[in-house]
Amino acid sequence: MKIQVLTDVLKVNQTVAQENQREFDKSRTLVLNVMSSPGAGKTLIIEKTLEKLGQELKFAAIEGDVATANDAERLAKYDIPVVQITTESFGGACHLDANMVREAASKLDLSSVDVLFIENIGNLICPAEYELGEHKRVIVLSVTEGEDKPTKYPVAFRNANVLLVNKVDLVDHLDLNMELLLQNSRKVNSNLDILQVSAKSGNGLDGWLDWIRKEVQLRKKKSGA
Amino acid sequence: MKIQVLTDVLKVNQTVAQENQREFDKSRTLVLNVMSSPGAGKTLIIEKTLEKLGQELKFAAIEGDVATANDAERLAKYDIPVVQITTESFGGACHLDANMVREAASKLDLSSVDVLFIENIGNLICPAEYELGEHKRVIVLSVTEGEDKPTKYPVAFRNANVLLVNKVDLVDHLDLNMELLLQNSRKVNSNLDILQVSAKSGNGLDGWLDWIRKEVQLRKKKSGA
Repeated sequence: MKIQVLTDVLKVNQTVAQENQREFDKSRTLVLNVMSSPGAGKTLIIEKTLEKLGQELKFAAIEGDVATANDAERLAKYDIPVVQITTESFGGACHLDANMVREAASKLDLSSVDVLFIENIGNLICPAEYELGEHKRVIVLSVTEGEDKPTKYPVAFRNANVLLVNKVDLVDHLDLNMELLLQNSRKVNSNLDILQVSAKSGNGLDGWLDWIRKEVQLRKKKSGA
Repeated sequence: MKIQVLTDVLKVNQTVAQENQREFDKSRTLVLNVMSSPGAGKTLIIEKTLEKLGQELKFAAIEGDVATANDAERLAKYDIPVVQITTESFGGACHLDANMVREAASKLDLSSVDVLFIENIGNLICPAEYELGEHKRVIVLSVTEGEDKPTKYPVAFRNANVLLVNKVDLVDHLDLNMELLLQNSRKVNSNLDILQVSAKSGNGLDGWLDWIRKEVQLRKKKSGA
């Protein structure tokens, strides 16, 4: 019975997500749903991306948090349009949903935006269940979280397109088996693009920037630009 | 409307949680609900506690995960009774609830157990809403997650009794403002006991072990032992 209700909620959500995607496609905007545990480095990765690609591409962002507008304030410094969603007013919801994104996106003029980042709430479980209308799903995993996370939180990894293994600058100070982390990720999702990066040191970020460039081109082509 | 349903669910959960607590009190068992983000170090802290206090006190554990029995296997090595709950069979629930704990606890003989650890699912949002029948709530926060987490995930910190700031061995390799982290924690919950620890190096663990000893004594006294 409980699962039946959940299925209905997800079906309604999916319908709105599809409408969102049609809107995003009209403006030929690539939309990335960025997910991770709390503190894995999503915001810093987005900041570094804005710093490096800000002259080349136009960005906007929707920030999701339970509380505070800290992250929106961090991104607004890069002179891009940002909308903060705090779910405290939605009963403290543990994920964004397509309706919240629709409302937030309606406050953005996407007509000249190449890439819209949707930074989801820090949580490896609930966000994975809710489509938002995104074209691609990005998972950020901090090396400090350990090598077993892809198998312990399989839905998030199974539905992702790219995995950014972040904070690799810390690897020498950890008992981490990176090979096992990569194996576990591929076991859950053999199609996952995996990039090892350090948002802090900049290590490996070039691969991520190229991934975005490629996806933007692909999106423009698909929209018939 | 949605919030009404949530309120009912939480009320039913609370009733079962209170029944659980009455059972725990009968056996004079201190029950700790341990919560954190994925990979903050809950399991390693419990392992170190078993290693250091295993001769002095009797332990048992209920392990919560979406998938895998990895953590239960880690704890079983310490020769304590462990029950693993995987919520994949509950639609991938993002938290334990009082019913799951009732069922798991019924498989344990708590009559001689001093401390029952309930290791919740790695998630800083949903678990905070669900009482399980625990006497105290323990939050583990890894220093790698950053100083803003108490304000971004206020419910978990507001309802906690003790905060273990873990992985302090990594502090020298991070841009962390520890003073701000402590300030943010106290701002959300001025009654929080805060301990800085490294489960890996053992640094600061004595304070945590003393906290457990004190709480066990208090529990026995309250139960009239």
